[in-house]
Amino acid sequence: MDSPVGGRSVADVASEFEAATAVEPVGDGRYAAQLADGWDIGGNANGGYLMAVAARAMGASVGRPPLSLTAHFLAPGPTGPAVVEVDTVRDGRRMAVASGMLRVDDRPIITLLGTFAPPVDAAGEGLVVERSAPPELPPPDECVRTMPPVESGFGHRTLNRYHPDDAGFSRGDPSGTPEVRGWFEFADGGPIDPYALLLVADAFAPVCFNVRGVGPAWAPTLELTTHVRGVPAPGPLRVRFESRHLRDGYFEEDGEIWDSNDRLVAQSRQIALMPR
Amino acid sequence: MDSPVGGRSVADVASEFEAATAVEPVGDGRYAAQLADGWDIGGNANGGYLMAVAARAMGASVGRPPLSLTAHFLAPGPTGPAVVEVDTVRDGRRMAVASGMLRVDDRPIITLLGTFAPPVDAAGEGLVVERSAPPELPPPDECVRTMPPVESGFGHRTLNRYHPDDAGFSRGDPSGTPEVRGWFEFADGGPIDPYALLLVADAFAPVCFNVRGVGPAWAPTLELTTHVRGVPAPGPLRVRFESRHLRDGYFEEDGEIWDSNDRLVAQSRQIALMPR
Repeated sequence: MDSPVGGRSVADVASEFEAATAVEPVGDGRYAAQLADGWDIGGNANGGYLMAVAARAMGASVGRPPLSLTAHFLAPGPTGPAVVEVDTVRDGRRMAVASGMLRVDDRPIITLLGTFAPPVDAAGEGLVVERSAPPELPPPDECVRTMPPVESGFGHRTLNRYHPDDAGFSRGDPSGTPEVRGWFEFADGGPIDPYALLLVADAFAPVCFNVRGVGPAWAPTLELTTHVRGVPAPGPLRVRFESRHLRDGYFEEDGEIWDSNDRLVAQSRQIALMPR
Repeated sequence: MDSPVGGRSVADVASEFEAATAVEPVGDGRYAAQLADGWDIGGNANGGYLMAVAARAMGASVGRPPLSLTAHFLAPGPTGPAVVEVDTVRDGRRMAVASGMLRVDDRPIITLLGTFAPPVDAAGEGLVVERSAPPELPPPDECVRTMPPVESGFGHRTLNRYHPDDAGFSRGDPSGTPEVRGWFEFADGGPIDPYALLLVADAFAPVCFNVRGVGPAWAPTLELTTHVRGVPAPGPLRVRFESRHLRDGYFEEDGEIWDSNDRLVAQSRQIALMPR
């Protein structure tokens, strides 16, 4: 099955990401998954990875990939077996709406709600108003590969290369601006499909790390919404994450993800708690 | 009850908005509501109004107002009796997560998922990084009050005054920029609580109306997420809505809502279909 719809078994897939997000239907709208080693930050699965796993089940259930997917984060997700429960809310001709819940040992980990639709056609005709642009970045080998501040699998499965001006947080010298720009690709060179975009939207350090006085400590995401605006062309992605309003213990983080054709392929916004 | 938590009966409330969004518990997590006359665009309830009604039930159920609320729009909502079904997903010490479904005659109209939390304290201490600012607007009486392009109650309950540079769409002369800025208040001068912010986030004309070649026609919202960042101080609000990526038949619309103390009180993002 060549479509970006989820639900393939591990045997059919090639990349680390595809294998680590595979789901298997077990009846009654339930899907078995395995939260894989190597996608964690300090032992807990990355939030974008959890969204991708859940979205595979939701996408398989409605036969379409995500267009807009929201997750609320309930508890950290340890590696091991998980179950995704999917409810189809609406199954229209073009759009489907589904809710999902990812559980580990019956414990709710993330709850989701999304609209699913055929992939947005990059060759689409019609009106275009594009008021943004990919971030200007030095070539990948002149950017800075950082690793999570705690022992983590995540930094080994993905290549996150930060703009040198935005990587100061990793050596205790934050830039002062809640922004990070960089390159993203999978360490194994695997393809980036709409499900992988959900991971990318949560794959970089929280932008608050670049604010002076905020240490690199856990900044719990409460809610994250990603809009998939296209299927990426092959090649590394360029990303820009920034916060414009950081106050009262909360910050939002907006992401733009661009492909090698200078096309916006996803947007994200999350609201998170400032580290204590 | 003075808190901005929903669930008050009509008898306790004063403003048109509060009366029109009142809900009554009827057991089993269900709430009865009345989609009121006068909050429609061409006979169908405004999407932000529907979110506010549903959020009243969700907020009443978990005893806290919304912090981040997402709705996916399934079908137009006609005036008349409605039911909101609420499921509490997580009931934590500070945060609660709940899902909701608003139905009319058993027909699903909007489905929601949100995190609810005590109101964000405007007098909060701590780190502030504010990189945006309220839109610069002429005084309200020098702005342009537009009405929806079809006979609608909505334009009578709210005072939407557009920046003169952004009101061209209403006379067939779009500005060319997918942006609208303006003032918002209720026509009866009623207070603007966190629930009303959900309405404000969807109360202005779609920004695509200001793109040349796009007529003022229905631009169906697929999904809308609002983050409540504070309880507004009294007085009219200033709003800015804009789209940065309009293509392939979709556009996102980002909103910022500012109170009379120049404080950001809500952010919103929706993804919508371009008018046909």
